[in-house]
Amino acid sequence: MKITPLAIAITALTGSLNAWAAKPAAEPISPIQPAVITNPKLVELGKKLYFDPRLSKSGAISCNSCHNLSMGGTDNLKTSIGHNWQKGPINSPTVLNSRFALAQFWDGRAKDLKEQAGGPIANPGEMAFTHELAVDVLKSIPQYVAEFKSAFGTDAVDIGRITTAIAAFEETLVTPDSRFDKWLKGDKKALNEKELAGYALFKNSGCVACHNGPAVGGTSFQKMGVVEPYKATSPAEGRSAVTGKDADRFNFKVPTLRNVELTYPYFHDGEAATLEKAVDVMGRLQLGKQFTTDENASIVAFLKTLTGKQPNFKLPTLPPSSNATPQPKPFE
Amino acid sequence: MKITPLAIAITALTGSLNAWAAKPAAEPISPIQPAVITNPKLVELGKKLYFDPRLSKSGAISCNSCHNLSMGGTDNLKTSIGHNWQKGPINSPTVLNSRFALAQFWDGRAKDLKEQAGGPIANPGEMAFTHELAVDVLKSIPQYVAEFKSAFGTDAVDIGRITTAIAAFEETLVTPDSRFDKWLKGDKKALNEKELAGYALFKNSGCVACHNGPAVGGTSFQKMGVVEPYKATSPAEGRSAVTGKDADRFNFKVPTLRNVELTYPYFHDGEAATLEKAVDVMGRLQLGKQFTTDENASIVAFLKTLTGKQPNFKLPTLPPSSNATPQPKPFE
Repeated sequence: MKITPLAIAITALTGSLNAWAAKPAAEPISPIQPAVITNPKLVELGKKLYFDPRLSKSGAISCNSCHNLSMGGTDNLKTSIGHNWQKGPINSPTVLNSRFALAQFWDGRAKDLKEQAGGPIANPGEMAFTHELAVDVLKSIPQYVAEFKSAFGTDAVDIGRITTAIAAFEETLVTPDSRFDKWLKGDKKALNEKELAGYALFKNSGCVACHNGPAVGGTSFQKMGVVEPYKATSPAEGRSAVTGKDADRFNFKVPTLRNVELTYPYFHDGEAATLEKAVDVMGRLQLGKQFTTDENASIVAFLKTLTGKQPNFKLPTLPPSSNATPQPKPFE
Repeated sequence: MKITPLAIAITALTGSLNAWAAKPAAEPISPIQPAVITNPKLVELGKKLYFDPRLSKSGAISCNSCHNLSMGGTDNLKTSIGHNWQKGPINSPTVLNSRFALAQFWDGRAKDLKEQAGGPIANPGEMAFTHELAVDVLKSIPQYVAEFKSAFGTDAVDIGRITTAIAAFEETLVTPDSRFDKWLKGDKKALNEKELAGYALFKNSGCVACHNGPAVGGTSFQKMGVVEPYKATSPAEGRSAVTGKDADRFNFKVPTLRNVELTYPYFHDGEAATLEKAVDVMGRLQLGKQFTTDENASIVAFLKTLTGKQPNFKLPTLPPSSNATPQPKPFE
C-alpha cells in the first residue's frame, strides 16, 4: 500500500479521536512517568554523593539531611537546621519530582538541579563548605575517584561533575503510580467519591490555575497573598531577590503537590502544619474563597491521592576516607 | 538402632575431631554468622524507628545520625553532634556487630542493645527528648500503631516496645563474609602474605588478648594506657562511672575491630585519625611495643581484611505524622 499524505492525516486524526474517546476531558494534571536511567553508574555515584555528609564542613550534613528520602524528600521542619545549628530562612522543598519544576529553590535562582546542587554545599548557613574543599575530599577517596572515572570516562573530579552526578540521581526521584495517576490512566475505581469531589473542587475553585502539570505545581512563580496579604515568618522576599523587580516581591515558585501528605509543614515559611490549614489559607488568600469544612476535607482527601511510589533503592554504602582525606571540622 | 550414652559420646568425639582436623589451630577470632531473623515485622519496625528523627526533640536526629549505616555504623567524627550542636563527650562506637559485645556504651552502662537504645533518646546532649514524648509521637502516627500491633500482637506503644524493636533491628546488623572470615573458613587465598604476617604479629604481640571473639573485641573492659598513660581529650572516666570503683578508672570496653577500616577516627576520644596511628599508640601504651613501619603496615593490612558485608536493605519509607502528632522543636 502506498502511503499518501491523506492516509497519514486520516491515521493521525483517528489516533487523536481514539485518545479523545478514551479520555473525554483533558486533565490539567498529567501522570508521573517512571524514571528512565541512561547512565546507571552516574546515578549510583550521585546517590552516594547525595548521602555523603563529607560534602559539609562538619562532616555531618548531607543532601539527605534536609531532603530526606525516607520522609517525602523533606525534613518535615518549618525551616532546616544548618551548620552549627543555624536556623534556615526558608522551608526545605521536596526533592521528589523536582525535575519537573521550571527552576530550583523557592525563588527559582537556580535554573536546574545541577545548578541547585552546588548551592547548599557552599552556603555558610547550610553545609558551610566550599566547592574546592568538597573536591579535595572526594579526590582523596580512591573509590570515589574510580567511580568518577567510570561514570564520566575520564579521571577528573570537579564541582561540575559532582553536581552533575547529584542532579542525575535527583532526576530519578520521581513518584509514579499514585492513586490519582491510576485514576488519570483510566482506573475509575482508584478514587472514591469524596476524593473525586475534592478534585472537582480543586479544579473549579481555581487551585489548578497554578497547581498543574505532572508535578501539580512547579510550572510558574506566583504571588503568595493575591487576595489578602500573607504575613510570613520567613524573611525571604521571593523572586524579586533574583530579578531585582519590585513587582516580583513575594512571588515564589508554586510548590509541587505530589506527595503533599508527606511534605508537611507547608508554605515557604513552613507555618501551615496541616493540609487542612494549608487549603484554608490558600483558598482565602489566593482565591478569595472560604471553603466549608466539608469542602476542605474533600480537597484534602484528593490531595492525599497524590502520594506516589516512594524512592525504592538500597541504602548506599559510602567509600571510606583515606589517610589523605581532610578532616571534618564540626566545631570550628 | 538403640542410641546409648556411649554412642552419643563417640559421635560427639568424632564431630570434634572432624572440626579439629578441618581447623588445625584454634583461632582466637571466629567468623561472623549471618543474622537469623525470627520476627521480620519487628525488625522492619525497628529499622524505621532507627531512621526516624521524630524520636528527637528537634525532629532532626535519628539513631542513624551518629551510627550511620552508610558509614560503617558510625559518624566518622571524633565526637558526635547532639541537639543544638552540642559536642558529645565521647566517640560514637559502631552499631555493626554490637550484638556481640558483653555490654553497651564505652563504659558498659547498658547491659544490652535494648537498654542502650533508650539512652540517646532521653540524653539532653544527644536527642534531647523524653521517653514519654517519643511514645506520644509514635502513638499519634496510625501506621506506626498498626505496625506495633502487627509486630507485638497487641496495641500498646511504650518505650519498652520501642527499644525492643530498635534492638531487634540492631541484632541484624552483622557483617559476615569479610576476607578474614573467608580465610578462617578455609579459603587460604583470601589473604595475601602481608595480611597473614600482620595477623601473626597481631596474635604474637598480644593484641589478641583483648581483641578476640567474633567481633575482634567487645568481650572485656580494659584500661586505656596499661604500660604508659593515655592522655585523653575526652572527659570520660570509663567503667568507674558505672561501678564506682577507683580501680576501674579509664577502663573502657574493648572496641570491635570488625570493619575498622570504616570506623575512623579511633579510641574513645576519637583522637587517632588513622589506623597506622591507632596501631602505633596501642602497641606502645598497651603492650610496650614499638612496631616498625613494616610491622605497623602489616597489622593495618590485616585489619583491613576485617571489613565485612555492609548492611544491605532498602532505605525505609517512614509513615507520615498525623495532625495530632506533636511538633518537633528544633530551636527551643
